[in-house]
Amino acid sequence: MAADKDARLDPLARLTGLLARLPGIGEKSALRLALAVVRSEGEYVEALSEAILAVRDELRLCELCNDLASATRCERCQDARRDRSTICVIAQPQDRMALERTGAYRGLYHVLHGVLDPLAGVGPSQLRLANLLPRLHGGDEPVREVIVATSPNVEGDATALYIAKLLAPLEIPVSRIASGVAVGGELEYADMTTLHRALEDRRRL
Amino acid sequence: MAADKDARLDPLARLTGLLARLPGIGEKSALRLALAVVRSEGEYVEALSEAILAVRDELRLCELCNDLASATRCERCQDARRDRSTICVIAQPQDRMALERTGAYRGLYHVLHGVLDPLAGVGPSQLRLANLLPRLHGGDEPVREVIVATSPNVEGDATALYIAKLLAPLEIPVSRIASGVAVGGELEYADMTTLHRALEDRRRL
Repeated sequence: MAADKDARLDPLARLTGLLARLPGIGEKSALRLALAVVRSEGEYVEALSEAILAVRDELRLCELCNDLASATRCERCQDARRDRSTICVIAQPQDRMALERTGAYRGLYHVLHGVLDPLAGVGPSQLRLANLLPRLHGGDEPVREVIVATSPNVEGDATALYIAKLLAPLEIPVSRIASGVAVGGELEYADMTTLHRALEDRRRL
Repeated sequence: MAADKDARLDPLARLTGLLARLPGIGEKSALRLALAVVRSEGEYVEALSEAILAVRDELRLCELCNDLASATRCERCQDARRDRSTICVIAQPQDRMALERTGAYRGLYHVLHGVLDPLAGVGPSQLRLANLLPRLHGGDEPVREVIVATSPNVEGDATALYIAKLLAPLEIPVSRIASGVAVGGELEYADMTTLHRALEDRRRL
């Protein structure tokens, strides 16, 4: 009954409705989460409510790379030790976190906050691309390579191709992360498309 | 990087940590949700933060049946038109919502807020059972049947058996919802245990 009532009257329905607007959270999960909040200790509930406001108040997007930042520029864009001649284009801040964990990349990033997905209504204007071009002629140090590290699926590949075309007139090399059988994975269980790419992208030993 | 830092310093890590304490939300989902909050409009963020406090401030558990209530007693326990001679024992408020949608039940409920699960450390004292017994001798109208509608899995079945034993001295009939092949389901695809129960619980036509 509660979930069917007017959301303005019923706090549970209201919270459920708001949670269901988060990505990957359906109506049922939202209700489950809202009920977990109801059952939580008052201290936890207060902390959660405050933490939500804090991310809005204390986090912003870096003016250069669109990554999460606590100042006008993010930690990496401020870090003089990083290689400013390489920019790695990624879809989400999570992707930067994953790449940083490898320790294999010392360049800068550019976060698109999405990938091209015409079926979901995401076109180039929905991506944070506007501030990419100025970075490529603007800086003190010339950019020598742009690595597109969007996921190797239809949307990620389309986004990579779009960026390669966009940057073609600048004559800056644009590369794409390799696809293939995951390290530690079994060839036998790799899907056909992955195996196809693994063959195409083969490299000399 | 952000998620690895001290939670007190980093609002994103703090929100991620709090969200990961909700049931069914792992570290990765929590981070994804926290980033969605970062990207949301300020208005949404404020509404979410307030809605979380509101469920704590405006909802409580019904003193009779432990269901969600905006007053000392829930809507159903207050409703004079409901059949007070039947009590349906359920694990969660969601189960009451599902049963109410069928329109097939007009009795009262008793919400346990969990099921027996020794491996997860949930024993009888963690369930809201204490106020069930007083309902069975206390009321103006005698209770004629207790229906245990916990889910038909190991934990739900154990809980049902426990309640049946607990109520045995009172000589009130305790019943269990039927298990079997789902309506509209295919016999061919039903799992062995379900089919076994469907045979056992067969009824005369």
